[in-house]
Amino acid sequence: MSNQSVVVIGGGPAGLREATTVAELGQQVTLIEKRSYLGGMPIAENYSNLTPYFMQADEAMGAIISHLQSLDGVTIMTDTTVTACTGEAGNFSLAVQGKDGPASVEAGAIVLATGFQHFDPGRETQLYGYYEFPDVIALQDLEAMMKEGNIVRPSNGEPPKRVCFVQCVGSRDRQIGNEYCSKVCCGIASKEAIEIREALPDTEVFIFYIDMRMYGYWESQIYWPAQEKHHVQYVKGIITEVLPKNGQLLVRGEDTTMGRPMEVMMDMVVLSVGMEPSVGTREMSALLGVKQNKYGFVEAVNAPLDTVTTSQAGIFAAGAALGPADLEDCTSSGGLAAAKAIGTIRRSMAVAG
Amino acid sequence: MSNQSVVVIGGGPAGLREATTVAELGQQVTLIEKRSYLGGMPIAENYSNLTPYFMQADEAMGAIISHLQSLDGVTIMTDTTVTACTGEAGNFSLAVQGKDGPASVEAGAIVLATGFQHFDPGRETQLYGYYEFPDVIALQDLEAMMKEGNIVRPSNGEPPKRVCFVQCVGSRDRQIGNEYCSKVCCGIASKEAIEIREALPDTEVFIFYIDMRMYGYWESQIYWPAQEKHHVQYVKGIITEVLPKNGQLLVRGEDTTMGRPMEVMMDMVVLSVGMEPSVGTREMSALLGVKQNKYGFVEAVNAPLDTVTTSQAGIFAAGAALGPADLEDCTSSGGLAAAKAIGTIRRSMAVAG
Repeated sequence: MSNQSVVVIGGGPAGLREATTVAELGQQVTLIEKRSYLGGMPIAENYSNLTPYFMQADEAMGAIISHLQSLDGVTIMTDTTVTACTGEAGNFSLAVQGKDGPASVEAGAIVLATGFQHFDPGRETQLYGYYEFPDVIALQDLEAMMKEGNIVRPSNGEPPKRVCFVQCVGSRDRQIGNEYCSKVCCGIASKEAIEIREALPDTEVFIFYIDMRMYGYWESQIYWPAQEKHHVQYVKGIITEVLPKNGQLLVRGEDTTMGRPMEVMMDMVVLSVGMEPSVGTREMSALLGVKQNKYGFVEAVNAPLDTVTTSQAGIFAAGAALGPADLEDCTSSGGLAAAKAIGTIRRSMAVAG
Repeated sequence: MSNQSVVVIGGGPAGLREATTVAELGQQVTLIEKRSYLGGMPIAENYSNLTPYFMQADEAMGAIISHLQSLDGVTIMTDTTVTACTGEAGNFSLAVQGKDGPASVEAGAIVLATGFQHFDPGRETQLYGYYEFPDVIALQDLEAMMKEGNIVRPSNGEPPKRVCFVQCVGSRDRQIGNEYCSKVCCGIASKEAIEIREALPDTEVFIFYIDMRMYGYWESQIYWPAQEKHHVQYVKGIITEVLPKNGQLLVRGEDTTMGRPMEVMMDMVVLSVGMEPSVGTREMSALLGVKQNKYGFVEAVNAPLDTVTTSQAGIFAAGAALGPADLEDCTSSGGLAAAKAIGTIRRSMAVAG
């Protein structure tokens, strides 16, 4: 007898979409989240506004969480981690550890939505002084500042007069092993640059980039207005060093368009850190025996014409657990993964009679 | 009494994924395709290999078509166009015109998967001589050549010794009204460049680009090997003119990295034409009363946390009907759209009792 319930592991944008889709299709779903709250990175890292439409992150995530909670057949387990998995497609049994101790959850199919973590800019190369100089921050630190409506230099609490973003920190970098492009950082940095310009109209904002990867509509939604309406200054260049100097930050590198060395003074430097598989993605992949690619993300074994099937029958993945992903990717792949999970259960039931 | 069937309009990658997903979930689906065959652009335009894994296009599309045909509850109508639509979510009635004359198709929900067309490089600006000079071709023309295993200059039937790709033809261009980036052209041009280098090892291949938008894994899957293994030569530059000269093509522009004018001789020029809404996307959107964005693509009114819902209840869209999309986008959004369509039918039935 096969089990008709789907287990979704991870309560961020992809996992919420999966659980919602399963429930909307009339199937039982259990959403397991190790944090004490749902919403994933946008909530955990205090994102201010979502890319590309500047939707307030709390409100947007809150709306989809409320909708999920309103649906029949949904069980949400926060503060819960998966500790073991036995069985097979149609009949999985998960051991979980929650607030109230260990428990068991049965499922016909499993969807991994365990997401990403931000690259740690203190690691190995690209040492831009994130841990040394208070005014060197990362994309998510600026989100949290903007959420509080308080864009200031951490060193002195004053609004910065000159801010720059350094792109590709932890991405496109063979030395650290992350050869891939993290896909979203160009868009997010540009969105944040616009928000700085709106909040602090006298502040100059620069973005140092290798290629501006504003694919699809991001080009017209973010990149053009950033330049034309908000006067964000894009400079094709490589930043090699950030040093403190006279109470500011000296940013050294090469302006690759002008073909000359560049030294500029900034009040604040924002590192556009890339995406890496989260600890949860690594741990759950190993626990479930799902093949990971060389970077530790879950491998979609039938891509590109099936984006969510993993190496294990009955186990699917969606969102940034599969690699760099924007919100639209998470939403779409979450929907396909949910449908695939239910399809697995239907087939198991047909076989089981 | 609501209708339990889903109608999918368009039989390309997104539509095939939608129809497959609906059928795998046990629901009736009718796939309507105006061409006499399924497979969409990869088949219609004779693509050789799919990006990024170099899967043979005929085989890959053939496999998903065969799988769809093997499922229960699937009706495929080729050579068929939709001529009218009445009703509402839960109860649509479509008038269609097929090989055997007019017919009527009932549906509880509709999914638009009418896709894109390649930008016509003879239109308005960016006049690179596509219609004047035989050795100026477009991405899809080269695909068709490669499918036949015969990469030659159309003017003389000889293999080219020097080939260049010109990026952003019909994209990122306000004058023609396509401000968006078409997203896939950097990847496809690079894939084709690799294939030329493999087929013709003595041929030099150049790619003239503004930004190399090799987002996500395309960076490590295509861009790095193109440079390091296959020695494709990437030049950041703007091409302004292509002229015939001494039996070759004189390509004029600016090398923006070197900051100087550039004149190079080529045997063949490949225009990396962008994506525009197909005639089907424009016509079906109008016929169904679905809101289009300023470019004519279908508007996803709840993006980014719902990528497939249109302005009309019960009508969803997926793939390149929504805007520039790679195969993974088409697959993922196809899955979500299928699930959303079935969800609509479930709700209608619950209301109808």
